[in-house]
Amino acid sequence: MPASPGSIPAVYLVPHHDGSALYVEKLTPLLGEEVRVRLRVPAGINAREVHVRMVRDGEPRLRPARLLHEGADESWYEADVLVHNPTTRYRFFVVLESGYGWVNQKGWFTHDVPDAHDFQLSVHAPAPKWLHDGVVYQIFPDRFARSSTAPKLSETSLPSWAIPATEWNEEPIASGPGVSEHFFGGDLDGIVEHLDHLTDLGVGTVYLTPVFPGQSNHRYDASTFDSVDPLLGGDDAYERLSQAVHDRGMHLMGDITTNHTGASHEWFTRAAHDPDAVERDFFYWIPQEPGYACWLEHPSLPKLNYTSEQLRSTMIKGPQSVIGRWLQPPFSLDGWRVDVANMTGRYQDMDVTHDVAKTIRTTMLEINPDALLIAEHFHDASADLGLGGWHGNMNYSAFTRPVWAWLASSEADIPAFGLPARMPRIDGTTMVQVMRTFDSVYPFTTLMSQWNMLGSHDTPRLRTLVGSADKVELAAALLFTYLGAPVVFAGDEVGLTGTNGEHARSTMPWNDPTRWDADTLAIYTALIRLRKEHPALSTGSLRWLHTTDDAVVFARQDSRDTIIIALARAPWSGVRIPLTVADRMVWDASAHTCAQSPAAKNPELIYGHGETTVTDGHLVVPATGPAVHMWRIR
Amino acid sequence: MPASPGSIPAVYLVPHHDGSALYVEKLTPLLGEEVRVRLRVPAGINAREVHVRMVRDGEPRLRPARLLHEGADESWYEADVLVHNPTTRYRFFVVLESGYGWVNQKGWFTHDVPDAHDFQLSVHAPAPKWLHDGVVYQIFPDRFARSSTAPKLSETSLPSWAIPATEWNEEPIASGPGVSEHFFGGDLDGIVEHLDHLTDLGVGTVYLTPVFPGQSNHRYDASTFDSVDPLLGGDDAYERLSQAVHDRGMHLMGDITTNHTGASHEWFTRAAHDPDAVERDFFYWIPQEPGYACWLEHPSLPKLNYTSEQLRSTMIKGPQSVIGRWLQPPFSLDGWRVDVANMTGRYQDMDVTHDVAKTIRTTMLEINPDALLIAEHFHDASADLGLGGWHGNMNYSAFTRPVWAWLASSEADIPAFGLPARMPRIDGTTMVQVMRTFDSVYPFTTLMSQWNMLGSHDTPRLRTLVGSADKVELAAALLFTYLGAPVVFAGDEVGLTGTNGEHARSTMPWNDPTRWDADTLAIYTALIRLRKEHPALSTGSLRWLHTTDDAVVFARQDSRDTIIIALARAPWSGVRIPLTVADRMVWDASAHTCAQSPAAKNPELIYGHGETTVTDGHLVVPATGPAVHMWRIR
Repeated sequence: MPASPGSIPAVYLVPHHDGSALYVEKLTPLLGEEVRVRLRVPAGINAREVHVRMVRDGEPRLRPARLLHEGADESWYEADVLVHNPTTRYRFFVVLESGYGWVNQKGWFTHDVPDAHDFQLSVHAPAPKWLHDGVVYQIFPDRFARSSTAPKLSETSLPSWAIPATEWNEEPIASGPGVSEHFFGGDLDGIVEHLDHLTDLGVGTVYLTPVFPGQSNHRYDASTFDSVDPLLGGDDAYERLSQAVHDRGMHLMGDITTNHTGASHEWFTRAAHDPDAVERDFFYWIPQEPGYACWLEHPSLPKLNYTSEQLRSTMIKGPQSVIGRWLQPPFSLDGWRVDVANMTGRYQDMDVTHDVAKTIRTTMLEINPDALLIAEHFHDASADLGLGGWHGNMNYSAFTRPVWAWLASSEADIPAFGLPARMPRIDGTTMVQVMRTFDSVYPFTTLMSQWNMLGSHDTPRLRTLVGSADKVELAAALLFTYLGAPVVFAGDEVGLTGTNGEHARSTMPWNDPTRWDADTLAIYTALIRLRKEHPALSTGSLRWLHTTDDAVVFARQDSRDTIIIALARAPWSGVRIPLTVADRMVWDASAHTCAQSPAAKNPELIYGHGETTVTDGHLVVPATGPAVHMWRIR
Repeated sequence: MPASPGSIPAVYLVPHHDGSALYVEKLTPLLGEEVRVRLRVPAGINAREVHVRMVRDGEPRLRPARLLHEGADESWYEADVLVHNPTTRYRFFVVLESGYGWVNQKGWFTHDVPDAHDFQLSVHAPAPKWLHDGVVYQIFPDRFARSSTAPKLSETSLPSWAIPATEWNEEPIASGPGVSEHFFGGDLDGIVEHLDHLTDLGVGTVYLTPVFPGQSNHRYDASTFDSVDPLLGGDDAYERLSQAVHDRGMHLMGDITTNHTGASHEWFTRAAHDPDAVERDFFYWIPQEPGYACWLEHPSLPKLNYTSEQLRSTMIKGPQSVIGRWLQPPFSLDGWRVDVANMTGRYQDMDVTHDVAKTIRTTMLEINPDALLIAEHFHDASADLGLGGWHGNMNYSAFTRPVWAWLASSEADIPAFGLPARMPRIDGTTMVQVMRTFDSVYPFTTLMSQWNMLGSHDTPRLRTLVGSADKVELAAALLFTYLGAPVVFAGDEVGLTGTNGEHARSTMPWNDPTRWDADTLAIYTALIRLRKEHPALSTGSLRWLHTTDDAVVFARQDSRDTIIIALARAPWSGVRIPLTVADRMVWDASAHTCAQSPAAKNPELIYGHGETTVTDGHLVVPATGPAVHMWRIR
């Protein structure tokens, strides 16, 4: 039997700051600017004074913070950070009666901490605002839809490598021979025909995996970067898709591999056969087999050498480069997702990866100041983000993996993604700790730009991992309320399954109700609608309020909204959240007074079931689980 | 009453690897080499299999490890790491019955961890071996000794800025006017006269703070880099000191500020008065007051601009540069400690600090392949070490500060070093966690090269911080048994006191028995002798065995020795250490068999008091405290 509300303990609050607009006056300052930053300090901390510590030319310095507002429950402090370097690190120093504490992006510490998790102000702009107009929807073109006017697959002339599927709803080959050749014939006009589905779901950005021709169903082995695969409908179909996507106010993202080409690529073919070819120095020629460096030793994927100026100008530098051309009419891509970005420009003792990323970004911005650049990085991208190159990355390490491990079914014998072991199970506190450890090394503007996912064409399907629709709802609720940009892999919203990346590339079951989970689709649609209604859920402040084995509770907040999100994977003890977490200060021109708290503090349940209980100024988060609850406090 | 040995719990052992020669076949490999690495896994972990994960061109890969030896208590695994990049990161992946664990340089984790704390193999050589011939002894020349043949200070002609001390044993001015001008008249021949003290103590390296002339007692405001201050005896006396130090088989380290000069420096004087001077572009000229960039806004210390090629060739590049010349006869310095290294070459959006450090190292190695290069960095040096520039740094963050915070007297109202708060007190577990957090981001070869300290001319004296001689013994025991190079600030070994950096620059009390603590000197001498007798204490494996509030226990081990060190700041519960921690495998030419454990496992008490108790294969670490115990197991 659950405890009575009065006996449920209240959360212990620690000082809080983050890089959101509630706490930082200017998110993307100019070099040399002074930026005001704020810290809220709960009364229970007994702070004597507060300073900001900032690192300048490698040397930290303290500056005293001003007490802005002293309340019964918490005090607010403000300090100025001088943006002396392009990335300026800072954290707060809180003097206690005995000793002191630090507030950094990872949390609150009463011992010394390294600079790695400092807050960061960066002069580099985050992803464009349009990224937060709805969610990102990832389409693997061969599996999404075949246009109604296309001939039957069996009546189509296919390249010799292709193994045609017998019917659209066939299960994809999951491993072994044929895995990359199993061909379903999805095309670009098929996507155009189903854009209503995307609009209804709340999609803002359509992201397609590669459309260049290759010798596989995934097309990551491009044979040219100059044209769209005729099997998808060619350049004309891509132009029609771009037009249709943009007509609906959505944005379109391309996918390109900068690290390597396919061995059938025209550059490599010329380079391999002619030592005098212009493209000869696009690749690394080595004495060992097969004679050139390749991606993970696959001879089919020769690695590109970015110490070549000629490669740079052909591939990444300037409006006429490959990167530049596709952003221009008639295709007008709004950005690139870059495959294997983590390896691009790195080989042995050569490492020009940061320079490559910055060159790509510069090229894109020359054409479209609102272009988006996202890196693929399966692991720890901390060496590569926030430097003026990639806006963000595919956020497996700080989002996907810890969420999986919290929600993975204990029955499912799913391998841990990319590792020869079973998927681990971790508790909620560990999940949050892992998320914070991985993501607290970036500027907040990078966190705003991250692509958070619950899976992709490279991973098992979420539904298979967690084993049940209620766990899918939990994962989706976290995805759509978390800082950054949620990415939905097409089909997750209707409950598709898949045991690994290849098996997960299942076709959209447009005409197969047995594979179409309408309840899950309704949940996704409702959650995405909530996110769109409350911008706080996209780019607002993120404050962890409580974590325990089976539940996590956090707040998203901006100048308009305070949303409390509570996720429980199982029955738990519940917790009481003081409604003062909804207090906030809002910058204004003078900004040296505390903004008034809302006159009334009424939590309104905006997602989930049950009564809302408030006792003694505290919202009672119920002990039920699995359950998702969200309240808006006003 | 302490518990009986049988009731004292045994330590819980986790898998262990470190970068020492016991676990890594080749500490400084060549690019492209395969290096064997070993992991020991206690039986209680129930490992199913082990892999090594290494990062290659930004992409991690797993390789299976081989089971070398399976014992009742632990198993040993071996794997090959390909040194594909100049710094190659790796860690171990341990498959468990459910889920998995990671072993990185910070410890053992059953959740995902970022790459920051991976083990690292670096192609850059560590500090020269001579650094471990005895300890480093830091001398602040004005305060060490005035030579017997020098005239009395009152009869000496002094520069106008100097405020002569009335007598040698006078207390230094601790703050306010005169703090940098209080002049005691120590000189270089005074050091020569007292080298017996250093030899008796066990010193291997003599490190002098600057000897260039300036306008202060500390001489960090050099007016030239071309000659030694006549107040110290000039070039001739420096030559005599170098000769005497080297005659005793010791090494001599200089101290230079590369970040800035004094405003009285000849380069700055010329540059400030003549826009056409060669030295004009040595500095940053800015519109704001005082017209040039300076160190922490002190106009007396103009900052050097390393984007100037002319400055580079004058200051750091090539045998004829300032850095190069002093390493050559007749002075033959064995290395440099570089002041304000963390800021050198960094200014706003210019950052050439890594290039500056590598240039300095290259210059030094051209003259002497055995030269040592140490950076001053008070804080988190993780951005700057292990890259082929600085060998190591003055290790305040990963050693000095956590040790202080564990041992600081609760009575002493000492400010936290550099922070406007009282020195915090932390428990032993937190101390070790802080040490590991800060130092696990470097290659082991960098850790071998770190200068560990219990204080310096910039900090309060240890004795004042900890408040008692027994706590000094605890701190010293940790210093002299820890990985890296211990540095003794002259006078710590006789118990000098001081409340801040300036006050700590007290004179050596050669003729003042009231300030000469012979007991502490005996403790220092004994501990340094132990360190010299057991190289495992310098560069051997370091394995934490147990930490709790009031005690920490760890093992140092090499192919010859296993030393257990137990430090308790207060009475505690004690712990039992299985003698199997002394097992080890030693590389040999074939190296694929397990080296025999010692036939007998007898712990011999080599430091401390009391009986040595062994029960059921476990060494009983007694519950007494404050206490230092060390055993050699053989």
